[in-house]
Amino acid sequence: MPAPTLDERYNAEIARGMIKLNNDATSGFSKYLGVTFDELLAGRLEATMRVPDDVITPFGTMHGGAMAGFVDHVMGCVLYPLMAKGQWAATTEFKLNYLAAIRGGELKATATVLSMTKRTAVVRCDVSDGDRLACVAQGTLLITDRGAN
Amino acid sequence: MPAPTLDERYNAEIARGMIKLNNDATSGFSKYLGVTFDELLAGRLEATMRVPDDVITPFGTMHGGAMAGFVDHVMGCVLYPLMAKGQWAATTEFKLNYLAAIRGGELKATATVLSMTKRTAVVRCDVSDGDRLACVAQGTLLITDRGAN
Amino acid sequence: MPAPTLDERYNAEIARGMIKLNNDATSGFSKYLGVTFDELLAGRLEATMRVPDDVITPFGTMHGGAMAGFVDHVMGCVLYPLMAKGQWAATTEFKLNYLAAIRGGELKATATVLSMTKRTAVVRCDVSDGDRLACVAQGTLLITDRGAN
Amino acid sequence: MPAPTLDERYNAEIARGMIKLNNDATSGFSKYLGVTFDELLAGRLEATMRVPDDVITPFGTMHGGAMAGFVDHVMGCVLYPLMAKGQWAATTEFKLNYLAAIRGGELKATATVLSMTKRTAVVRCDVSDGDRLACVAQGTLLITDRGAN
Repeated sequence: MPAPTLDERYNAEIARGMIKLNNDATSGFSKYLGVTFDELLAGRLEATMRVPDDVITPFGTMHGGAMAGFVDHVMGCVLYPLMAKGQWAATTEFKLNYLAAIRGGELKATATVLSMTKRTAVVRCDVSDGDRLACVAQGTLLITDRGAN
Repeated sequence: MPAPTLDERYNAEIARGMIKLNNDATSGFSKYLGVTFDELLAGRLEATMRVPDDVITPFGTMHGGAMAGFVDHVMGCVLYPLMAKGQWAATTEFKLNYLAAIRGGELKATATVLSMTKRTAVVRCDVSDGDRLACVAQGTLLITDRGAN
Repeated sequence: MPAPTLDERYNAEIARGMIKLNNDATSGFSKYLGVTFDELLAGRLEATMRVPDDVITPFGTMHGGAMAGFVDHVMGCVLYPLMAKGQWAATTEFKLNYLAAIRGGELKATATVLSMTKRTAVVRCDVSDGDRLACVAQGTLLITDRGAN
Repeated sequence: MPAPTLDERYNAEIARGMIKLNNDATSGFSKYLGVTFDELLAGRLEATMRVPDDVITPFGTMHGGAMAGFVDHVMGCVLYPLMAKGQWAATTEFKLNYLAAIRGGELKATATVLSMTKRTAVVRCDVSDGDRLACVAQGTLLITDRGAN
């Protein structure tokens, strides 16, 4: 039996719930970073970060760690509508390259699931600042059954 | 002529200034994350993160992106006392592995310069939660002369 | 003055020379791995690896290190037609995720330049085995003027 | 019940078998690269690479991909004496930074297990060329029960 496709795995209700959970938050790391989820499709999450003043360093550019936080957040959420009830996903590792200094404004991120098995998924994330690529990342998520180790 | 050692490059005054800049901040990403610099030696920065409630997710564990932000911040600052006047360093890439879920409390990070040339440095960063290793990272910093590209 | 585009930087003669250098080699690591360069455009290198028996492990699958070698080779060569005379590029770091076990046959790699400044370039590399993605990587190349450090 | 320590997991007989398997090979990728296993302890593998002429590029330095192959091989083998009968480990991702150009001679690698759960392990690998650090890497291995996915 072939593995189900991302489309077959996709649960639109969970996707809507995840968007709402992120966008309606009144506190937490995502809220601090100014992150909004725009669309959560089968294997793709589109998000926006409205760069808050608090992550601009004294040198006038966005703190790289805030970009890393944005990337981690978007990569970590793309898998939810693809998992079975009772499953859980956590980013276990990622790598990123910073491509451009950011001075503020709005960033757009796209996380894409490249590969998914029962236990792991590999995800890529591109962040752009207007028409410039600003950061690229790839990482691994581990899928766990709740209660299991 | 051999390259100067890290000890020969080290400027204690810049180190003290960097610690003060971080620890006295009343706003900014590092302050948000609860990061204090404890010691900035020749090629080694020790820092503490007092995990703020705002980065604990609804699942009760620390947001991975906050860990990534902590790592980026510590790696990016370790080089300052080692550079010539007018030089500037920026993290250009890094990779991290998360090793343990964090529920709060205090994390300790150590960033270590593994290699440094005129233009780049490779830095490793280990984060521990008590006696457990919680995150390991390695990355590259680019050194730029101010005004140069 | 804006930075030149990849198309403006591209030197077709150097590209042809690089393809010939790789494909005509009678020894060396690329030859051992069975790597052929198919096309070297402005910012994109397409290559094929005909998996040699010598990199199949006793478990019947290709040694991951041979995939890593293939990726490193392709990423390291994509920049040559884009550099000024007398410049030199070397991969300084990369990260890869293995997505599928390989049992032999032919692999196709595409290395793509995502970003290029005077001193560095960030490159992505995807390897596929038929219609399956088999490995994804991203890394950094440092550009050096010959004789400089 | 706490997880067993690396010492408790360690099976010296498997370690000896793994060293013999590598060192007695008359063909294969490890043999091509000139890799010998020197010691395989609980969570640490020491190996030597006698750089073969075939991986020296026309520029006189060792091909980075051969270093990547060495690193992948050493990281992928350190786990064997720590697994239960019937288990299997495969490197699923890694990242490396090249720190020095290599012109030949002997390289020494140490792979160290930083963390190990039932399903994954995080491993670090340092390669040195005499007293210089030449390459640093970290990656993840997935542990599978044979027959399982």
